[in-house]
Amino acid sequence: MSFSSADIRRAVLAQEKDVSALFDELRAGSLDPVGPGVTRDTFGAGEQFGYRVIEAQASALGLEQRYDHAANLFMTLPGRDRTRPRIMMGSHLDSVGNGGNFDGAAGVIAGLVATRALKSLGIEPACDVTTMAIRAEESVWFEVSYIGSRSAFGMLPDGALEMRRRDTGRVLAEHMAECGADVEAVRRGVASLTAKDIAAWVEVHIEQAPQLIEADKPVAIGTGVPGNFRYPEIAIHGEWAHVGLPRRFRHDAVLAASDFALGLDEIWKTADTAQRPMAFTIGRFFTDADEHALTKVAGLMTLSLDVRAYDRAHLADLETQVLVLVKRIEEARGVRFDLGRRASADVAPSDPKLFAALTEAASQVGIPTMPLASPASHDTATFTVAGVPSCMLFVRNQNGSHNPHEAMEIADFLDTASVLTQWLAGAVQG
Amino acid sequence: MSFSSADIRRAVLAQEKDVSALFDELRAGSLDPVGPGVTRDTFGAGEQFGYRVIEAQASALGLEQRYDHAANLFMTLPGRDRTRPRIMMGSHLDSVGNGGNFDGAAGVIAGLVATRALKSLGIEPACDVTTMAIRAEESVWFEVSYIGSRSAFGMLPDGALEMRRRDTGRVLAEHMAECGADVEAVRRGVASLTAKDIAAWVEVHIEQAPQLIEADKPVAIGTGVPGNFRYPEIAIHGEWAHVGLPRRFRHDAVLAASDFALGLDEIWKTADTAQRPMAFTIGRFFTDADEHALTKVAGLMTLSLDVRAYDRAHLADLETQVLVLVKRIEEARGVRFDLGRRASADVAPSDPKLFAALTEAASQVGIPTMPLASPASHDTATFTVAGVPSCMLFVRNQNGSHNPHEAMEIADFLDTASVLTQWLAGAVQG
Repeated sequence: MSFSSADIRRAVLAQEKDVSALFDELRAGSLDPVGPGVTRDTFGAGEQFGYRVIEAQASALGLEQRYDHAANLFMTLPGRDRTRPRIMMGSHLDSVGNGGNFDGAAGVIAGLVATRALKSLGIEPACDVTTMAIRAEESVWFEVSYIGSRSAFGMLPDGALEMRRRDTGRVLAEHMAECGADVEAVRRGVASLTAKDIAAWVEVHIEQAPQLIEADKPVAIGTGVPGNFRYPEIAIHGEWAHVGLPRRFRHDAVLAASDFALGLDEIWKTADTAQRPMAFTIGRFFTDADEHALTKVAGLMTLSLDVRAYDRAHLADLETQVLVLVKRIEEARGVRFDLGRRASADVAPSDPKLFAALTEAASQVGIPTMPLASPASHDTATFTVAGVPSCMLFVRNQNGSHNPHEAMEIADFLDTASVLTQWLAGAVQG
Repeated sequence: MSFSSADIRRAVLAQEKDVSALFDELRAGSLDPVGPGVTRDTFGAGEQFGYRVIEAQASALGLEQRYDHAANLFMTLPGRDRTRPRIMMGSHLDSVGNGGNFDGAAGVIAGLVATRALKSLGIEPACDVTTMAIRAEESVWFEVSYIGSRSAFGMLPDGALEMRRRDTGRVLAEHMAECGADVEAVRRGVASLTAKDIAAWVEVHIEQAPQLIEADKPVAIGTGVPGNFRYPEIAIHGEWAHVGLPRRFRHDAVLAASDFALGLDEIWKTADTAQRPMAFTIGRFFTDADEHALTKVAGLMTLSLDVRAYDRAHLADLETQVLVLVKRIEEARGVRFDLGRRASADVAPSDPKLFAALTEAASQVGIPTMPLASPASHDTATFTVAGVPSCMLFVRNQNGSHNPHEAMEIADFLDTASVLTQWLAGAVQG
């Protein structure tokens, strides 16, 4: 059978109204009770609603549907040879609280759009083509990254099942069981996915910064997902004191914490100048609400730290710099840092061949793209670390993500789906 | 009648056991329920307990007792001529939550010790000698300074009666009424004290920094109480964003707040070098607990600011520097400061003649002293601003105040009371 890039493009653009309606349906059913954003809470009612909507789509397309032990959903267009390594697409269905409608869901819908385009063009794939709707990517809820995808590969870290959801206070195991997961299988490290059975993984995701806006391009091809190290609860112990205490006697936790934040900012500035991409974020930063007062020098600050970069050596170097900074502030201010629990994730560079194939597909279908290092974490990192050739496509998006004002244009989404479909149509040739 | 410095000294030291017992009684009855410090809450059960203990002392000494419209207690040894301007001593009876036993109470007890020494030496004062036990000095409870002393002078600021106590959430007017105050009189600005009727005010207080420890002296004579300006609730509005947002797009409230804290620290360092005493304190400093997260760039920081100095020009200059700093950070980080409510208190230099008389008295009674600018606020500022010749005596104290580990030695307290008594004995000569 034969088809042109123009056929591919038409088969994707023909879905415009359905795609808009589908996003609207998802949004309408998961509006935050307080608003104005959407809340598809991880292993909760919001995420469950997302699965019902996506299941209905898969049924309409006549795809095989299967839930694994972690309640991830696999929607498959069977290939001519079902024993060949499959091609996988997808992303996650959960969101942060009062977040946007596109972060996650766009990648699942892109997989379904590409699959539907294949079918409408009468392309019979040589191998299975599976879109995966992944659980629990947003780490705000349980403070564990990639719960769904790591469970699929049997790699959920020890202790994760006992983490408590920030709002409900109930453990992950309980939330998973409520959504139909086999918690004991997750605990034993059962795998529903293995790298050798997967030819490629491509995740479409909205861009979470305005770099495509700045560059005036609709689509970016990912060069990799950063690794990170995290200290979710650093305590800086100074000395509580009276507002009248002269400067030389103070051990002010607020000033020590400010030194820490600005020291990290300096490290980032230097890395930016050297064009070594990284990011650090102190998301939580607070004096003790039970003790602090207008006229009291603060004896305790608590803060979270997330540091990310794209190669292991850089990440290791950054952690050394953080520890040197801590030591310096401890000495200068007479305070003590308690770094607390540490978590980390390995770096996940894109597969060079897949990156090249997606770049070629974009050129064939006439969509302008640019390479982009993802500053955010994504499930793609799990696939990469497991040994699957992986890559991401980013959709232009005006207002960042994790907020109610995400502003992805459907036209840009369809451009991205066109690149994905063009690549897929080539990749499934026998 | 004639007496020597040695007589004065003996009359004070003879009270050692009673003084220790009295401090112990106060402590035992106002231990914090959680501990380990004492809590004599402003216009609450803890402060009320303090009044019962002090009333019993005044009764034992046969002093006249009177409560004013703000529930301040005046304990008077009548003078030969009751129309002459009186001499006043005293301090406050409340404490911060889980604070120390000596901050405030020591000044009330010192007034009673000096009065008792006068009596035991058979000195009949030419004018009334009044010890005042003041209400509500600690601004942590209602975030209003000097409630008791300003009410006594009819100078409580508008709106203060409607401020809510931090823990109970109930307004000052309600708390005052429960302790026997005539709230409407306070509201109308009735005065129980007028400057022309007061010859001098001396407040004994523990030092709240270890400067006397450093100097190895038991007593300091105050050069003045600082004025201040306060912004109890500054909000810095940045932009909530995803952890993946590159540095150049961020408007991080945590970094803006850190810039502010360290900018103020630089201003203080410069003032220290120039030997212009001041202090700034950011006691509260926090991201929004409902919104902040490990993987979210913070869009809001809230903080309190207290800045204090000893002359008006310096204070005005500091406020200008703060506003310039705010503007600079707003521009550099693309954030917006909302300074919120502003409060202030005027500077209160000690009366030079009274300072000299106390210095002379210390020398007569053989107690080493040094001059000391009080970095903390005290009721003495109210007396000074009202036009009363005022001064303070500070008692050496190891571990600061506003904490359970205050460590004033009784010997140092008795040295301070000796200076006070020596001065008083001279001042009440007809």
